[in-house]
Amino acid sequence: MKKIAIDAMGGDHAPQALVEGANQALEKFSDIELILYGDEEQIKPLLKARERVSIVHTKEKIQSDDEPTKAIRKKKEASMVLAAKAVKNGEADAVLSAGNTGALLAAGFFIIGRIKQIDRPGLMSTLPTVDGRGFDMLDLGANAENTAHHLHQYAILGSFYAKHVRGIERPRIGLLNNGTESSKGDPLRKETYELLTNDSAINFVGNVEARDLMSGVADVVVTDGFTGNAVLKSIEGTAMSIMGQLKKSILAGGLKAKIGALLLKDSLKDLKQSLDYSDAGGAVLFGLKAPVVKTHGSSDAKAVFSTIAQIRTMLESDVVGKSVVEFSKEVEEK
Amino acid sequence: MKKIAIDAMGGDHAPQALVEGANQALEKFSDIELILYGDEEQIKPLLKARERVSIVHTKEKIQSDDEPTKAIRKKKEASMVLAAKAVKNGEADAVLSAGNTGALLAAGFFIIGRIKQIDRPGLMSTLPTVDGRGFDMLDLGANAENTAHHLHQYAILGSFYAKHVRGIERPRIGLLNNGTESSKGDPLRKETYELLTNDSAINFVGNVEARDLMSGVADVVVTDGFTGNAVLKSIEGTAMSIMGQLKKSILAGGLKAKIGALLLKDSLKDLKQSLDYSDAGGAVLFGLKAPVVKTHGSSDAKAVFSTIAQIRTMLESDVVGKSVVEFSKEVEEK
Repeated sequence: MKKIAIDAMGGDHAPQALVEGANQALEKFSDIELILYGDEEQIKPLLKARERVSIVHTKEKIQSDDEPTKAIRKKKEASMVLAAKAVKNGEADAVLSAGNTGALLAAGFFIIGRIKQIDRPGLMSTLPTVDGRGFDMLDLGANAENTAHHLHQYAILGSFYAKHVRGIERPRIGLLNNGTESSKGDPLRKETYELLTNDSAINFVGNVEARDLMSGVADVVVTDGFTGNAVLKSIEGTAMSIMGQLKKSILAGGLKAKIGALLLKDSLKDLKQSLDYSDAGGAVLFGLKAPVVKTHGSSDAKAVFSTIAQIRTMLESDVVGKSVVEFSKEVEEK
Repeated sequence: MKKIAIDAMGGDHAPQALVEGANQALEKFSDIELILYGDEEQIKPLLKARERVSIVHTKEKIQSDDEPTKAIRKKKEASMVLAAKAVKNGEADAVLSAGNTGALLAAGFFIIGRIKQIDRPGLMSTLPTVDGRGFDMLDLGANAENTAHHLHQYAILGSFYAKHVRGIERPRIGLLNNGTESSKGDPLRKETYELLTNDSAINFVGNVEARDLMSGVADVVVTDGFTGNAVLKSIEGTAMSIMGQLKKSILAGGLKAKIGALLLKDSLKDLKQSLDYSDAGGAVLFGLKAPVVKTHGSSDAKAVFSTIAQIRTMLESDVVGKSVVEFSKEVEEK
């Protein structure tokens, strides 16, 4: 039985979206057990499932604007903190939250802890590509600064995830750079390029440019947390702006445009779906002793369900355990 | 009379797009003179204008895949090199090219030269916002590495451009960062934040996130060349992928979708236009002794015309001359 601790009070639609997602997951998967942390009074009426689920009551919660590290230290009874502690104490195998990202990162670092040989856990998400396969990118901003050694570790972790969780036999690893030629980039990129080229255990396909990410140029893209954060937010911001502009110009286009939009409804829905990557689950803080997964603050029940399914696959494939073994080997070899 | 040297042989549609753009500009503006560098045999038949225009014949040109610095040094008679030399020798006031970006940067640095007090010229473009005002961002990749001091200089240059060329009285300057709080970012961002806060001559509005760029959160956004390049390419790649997906899902949607798209034609055209920022001209390599402007390789006559208009405004407002004065003052004060 895989035990997942859920912070039921984090996110814009908490606890409804979390509890409804939990209901769906419990119905679909018979090999999971969920522990919901939060206000029992609010959670209980929404909870359909009666088996393999429990509520740990707490009134305290971390707000989206709380200062992360401080919140984790001071709000000792917050739903997110209790969920992380359950993993630390062996009462659960993984934690899921839709709450304050910074606080979840802090809870992951300070309560659950990193895998010994991994210096700086990285935040990783599966992002959309036009062919529907998607790509994994890390670090998306767990760190403001990274070394080439960190990026090398991200390549190994990302490769592990793409193989064991996404089922890609020999994942293509790309290094995000300002050109595709091997000589490109700042010292960090040049040093990372060397490390990745010399690691025969990964399938390094060279430098990739941000322009080609959505075309599926690689299965895993590694970068430092500052750049990863900027690229992720650029993709999100551009997609949102374009969809908003499209809506605006349809509304401004009068009756003709509105009928057109009606006839195009299915196509526009397809488009929206191809940009929506919540099916792939949430963002994994990778490099910790257990899966810590952040689903978007605006997640609905479906996105929560997808993230539980993702965590289940991570536990089933034991991708974290295998990473621990892999990184221990590396140390022994040195 | 403002004299502009045009590399007529660079870009995907050379020399047609360049010469046709020149025709349009000469008809519209009576205070400009254009010198076209390239193959006279190809240029002459396309050239309608007879006054205020001349051709400097050369067969040599820089290819899009030429190694930039080497090309500039070896191809001494290339159209781009001759255009840059004309500016250096005082025969022209500015240079325009649609060719190899790296080579144009190299020609700018090595032939025209930087303003004495500016350490690292930056590449700047006006990018689209949903309100149609646009924002200027630099450095978009002239440099792989930048210091806080460079970013401070970009803030001053960008502010000058937004004021004198785009007519924004008190341009809002934003620092691209991984969060809006003043404490955010790596050491480079933190140091830059201090420098910008303490410079009362610019209207610094604080940190901005990549997600909000297209919402018009600032008039000028400064960042290092590596991040700027990644963000620009993310925006371009995302926009292209979405428009491509939209087209694909319309085509796959059968007759109903096609009729819908037909009725929506004007709205879709509006959308495309709001994403198209070629009206704002090309990318300026800012910090050189004269305007050096790169228009997109795929530019058509209209985009070339817009870029000539942009250079005309840069010369009219003497934004480069004013920058020289401003940066000389800074040195005197120290």
